[in-house]
Amino acid sequence: MEKNLLGNNTITQIGLVVRDIEKTSQAYADFFGIDKPAWFWTDAPEAARTEYGGQPSQARAKLAFFDMGSLQLELIEPDEHPSTWRESLERDGEGFHHIAFVIEGMQQKIELLGRQGHKLLQKGEYTGGRYAYMDTSSELKLLVELLENDR
Amino acid sequence: MEKNLLGNNTITQIGLVVRDIEKTSQAYADFFGIDKPAWFWTDAPEAARTEYGGQPSQARAKLAFFDMGSLQLELIEPDEHPSTWRESLERDGEGFHHIAFVIEGMQQKIELLGRQGHKLLQKGEYTGGRYAYMDTSSELKLLVELLENDR
Repeated sequence: MEKNLLGNNTITQIGLVVRDIEKTSQAYADFFGIDKPAWFWTDAPEAARTEYGGQPSQARAKLAFFDMGSLQLELIEPDEHPSTWRESLERDGEGFHHIAFVIEGMQQKIELLGRQGHKLLQKGEYTGGRYAYMDTSSELKLLVELLENDR
Repeated sequence: MEKNLLGNNTITQIGLVVRDIEKTSQAYADFFGIDKPAWFWTDAPEAARTEYGGQPSQARAKLAFFDMGSLQLELIEPDEHPSTWRESLERDGEGFHHIAFVIEGMQQKIELLGRQGHKLLQKGEYTGGRYAYMDTSSELKLLVELLENDR
């Protein structure tokens, strides 16, 4: 088996799906005594070019980020369209969704992980980069998100 | 509401419950190209003085730690006795269990969080310190572990 598949083992983000990003952001801000960050929508479908399960999806989500040490905690409130976020919320309820790693060479990483049996769940673009959620759950017991930022 | 309840917002650990720590440790080692750490048992009940749901518990677990950036990923394979680990595994299956923060003044923190509605789920001792799992799930959508290390 090929090893060190990501070329990086620094967890940069922990993502949670929530039903009410405003309410949970306030709870985090209060609990940790930090400012409540403004949430924002992921890009519109024509910019995000979201694919879920190999199909284009209209899905968007509200996102909010908290700095918690050297990594970020990300709150995600998905809209009603099909996405890994929506699926996780409906199947497991609110809570943990993924850990994320910064990588280089998105398409090659997706193919490399695919050859190891880790399927692409969802991918999309954001201003300055792109992401992919890989279904690493059978081996790692959680989902891994790949993040590639333009230089 | 009192703010900054922990006096710290650096995530120091992400904990996962698993059924086979040997197998999942190997999967992490292979995926990330790192050495497989040796797992070890939590202390025996007379040393750990574990309490779960306010009652003494014989529960133990096998633990393994991976350095993943500035935090650790912890794998936990619980034994058959009642614990938050066992409960999580039986209710939700393998996967995410908690995020942890280093704190000072364990008893005061447990009481402070309790006054905010966050109940103590489980606590115990380990060589060099003590831990407490707090049920912060209704507000934060995940469990928080408090870690206090002796100086």
